[in-house]
Amino acid sequence: MILAFDFGGTKLTAGCLRNGETEWHDLKRVFSPDGADAQYEIETMIALGKALIDGQEIERIGISFGGPVDYESGIVRLSHHVTGWENIPLQQMFESEFGVPVRVDNDANVAALGEYQFGAGQGVADMMYLTVSTGVGGGWVLNGRSWRGHEGMAGEIGHMTVDPNGPLCLCGKRGCVERYASGPYMAADMEPEDGVTWTGKVVSEMAAQGHDGAMRRLMLGAWGWGRGVGSAANLIFPKGFVLGGGVTKSGEAWWTAVRKTAHQTAIPEVDFDIVPAQLGDDAPLWGAIALGETK
Amino acid sequence: MILAFDFGGTKLTAGCLRNGETEWHDLKRVFSPDGADAQYEIETMIALGKALIDGQEIERIGISFGGPVDYESGIVRLSHHVTGWENIPLQQMFESEFGVPVRVDNDANVAALGEYQFGAGQGVADMMYLTVSTGVGGGWVLNGRSWRGHEGMAGEIGHMTVDPNGPLCLCGKRGCVERYASGPYMAADMEPEDGVTWTGKVVSEMAAQGHDGAMRRLMLGAWGWGRGVGSAANLIFPKGFVLGGGVTKSGEAWWTAVRKTAHQTAIPEVDFDIVPAQLGDDAPLWGAIALGETK
Repeated sequence: MILAFDFGGTKLTAGCLRNGETEWHDLKRVFSPDGADAQYEIETMIALGKALIDGQEIERIGISFGGPVDYESGIVRLSHHVTGWENIPLQQMFESEFGVPVRVDNDANVAALGEYQFGAGQGVADMMYLTVSTGVGGGWVLNGRSWRGHEGMAGEIGHMTVDPNGPLCLCGKRGCVERYASGPYMAADMEPEDGVTWTGKVVSEMAAQGHDGAMRRLMLGAWGWGRGVGSAANLIFPKGFVLGGGVTKSGEAWWTAVRKTAHQTAIPEVDFDIVPAQLGDDAPLWGAIALGETK
Repeated sequence: MILAFDFGGTKLTAGCLRNGETEWHDLKRVFSPDGADAQYEIETMIALGKALIDGQEIERIGISFGGPVDYESGIVRLSHHVTGWENIPLQQMFESEFGVPVRVDNDANVAALGEYQFGAGQGVADMMYLTVSTGVGGGWVLNGRSWRGHEGMAGEIGHMTVDPNGPLCLCGKRGCVERYASGPYMAADMEPEDGVTWTGKVVSEMAAQGHDGAMRRLMLGAWGWGRGVGSAANLIFPKGFVLGGGVTKSGEAWWTAVRKTAHQTAIPEVDFDIVPAQLGDDAPLWGAIALGETK
């Protein structure tokens, strides 16, 4: 049996799966209270894990962490959401606690692995996974394995510039993919309207209901995604792109726009598919299983 | 002994190297006459190869080809410079002729391998090689091996868009790296001037002599390179970029501009070096040796 943990900002999930099976043997999820720190999260996860195991034998553990991780050493560098995560040797702590080999990686890499092994990327050994919610995350699977690059964070497509004269991004640059594609930026760009509180989801819903401004903004976001995907295709020639996150549920017009822009951006020689992610918010947990299985 | 061939448009080069040595045992180079076709080039190269071997035993052969190649089958798809290269089974032909294993790949991939094994990329197992002359070529070495991607042409950074509102490129898109960086485009953008025939080299030389317009155009080219390199860094987090081709000899101001733009374009988390190529026009031939050694 493999044990998987997903430290997802304020959401803590643990699951276990029998080798070779594709249905959770058991799964437990809790939300961290306000003010929870690293120590609280670690203790909570250990308790969830022990409750899941309940005396059974486990072979390996995979952990997805929502922030930068040094994969080789299994040390979490920091969290942008929860305090106290600076340089925490998470792999070593869980190995001592559970007595089995542990692998830790950041959520984008792990989710990519999850979609490859259990989701929309099955059989696509060279693929990029992108997810957009409040931010943009990306991870690569190349030759059937996670490609991390140096510093472990390859796939950082969110702050790739697609228009150097585009709108200013909080990162200080202009025209980043995230500046076009993320929910908060879509919402921020909308004209105020009586009775409407703009969020990414609202932009997407209003667009579906025929709201012109919302549709224009949604299509601009799709354009940003497509530019990023097409450029990544030129550089790496992967076989597939798996796209996840709330905005991908915006309907056929959105997908058509992303695909059209991506293929216009890529050179004609590169052939690739763009497909919806299948695992939703559980992609990192599934990926943690795949990571746990990695020797 | 390894035998290497470089089909470089109109320049045909063959060389042989003893295993483990880093000086050519022997090297022969000829230029194809006008109107030479695939058959002429193949026969010429076979003759060069046989002359080099001169009765000695060779172990393996590596071939660099200036055009798209299917690496798995060793079939050349076509040449943009020389007629008759459509679907030529070059690997099979040379295996029959020389009786040893042969590997064929396109020049950008092979040159990247050459710089990695014998040139500026030594010890940098994750690197991208870029070269700019009349066009822009690019190839990856990841984990110490060529990364080809699907269709074998990963690294096509030349027609990656860095400004969607930039000048029109012959490829039909706007603001491609090549549109900023290549010699012919630099020359084409210059204002006519009495007694000056603009070429990429002349732009670079006049810039060095303090010609304002030439310097501005050269810096615009450097900006294009830097944008491309920085975006590639965000996506793949390689450790190094090796830059070759005539324009890289434009002096320190050019290098400073490329490095500055690249690091501004990349996110702060990615750390990489940008260094000049060392093998010059012989990078594909050296790479063909490395390719020949690939099992």
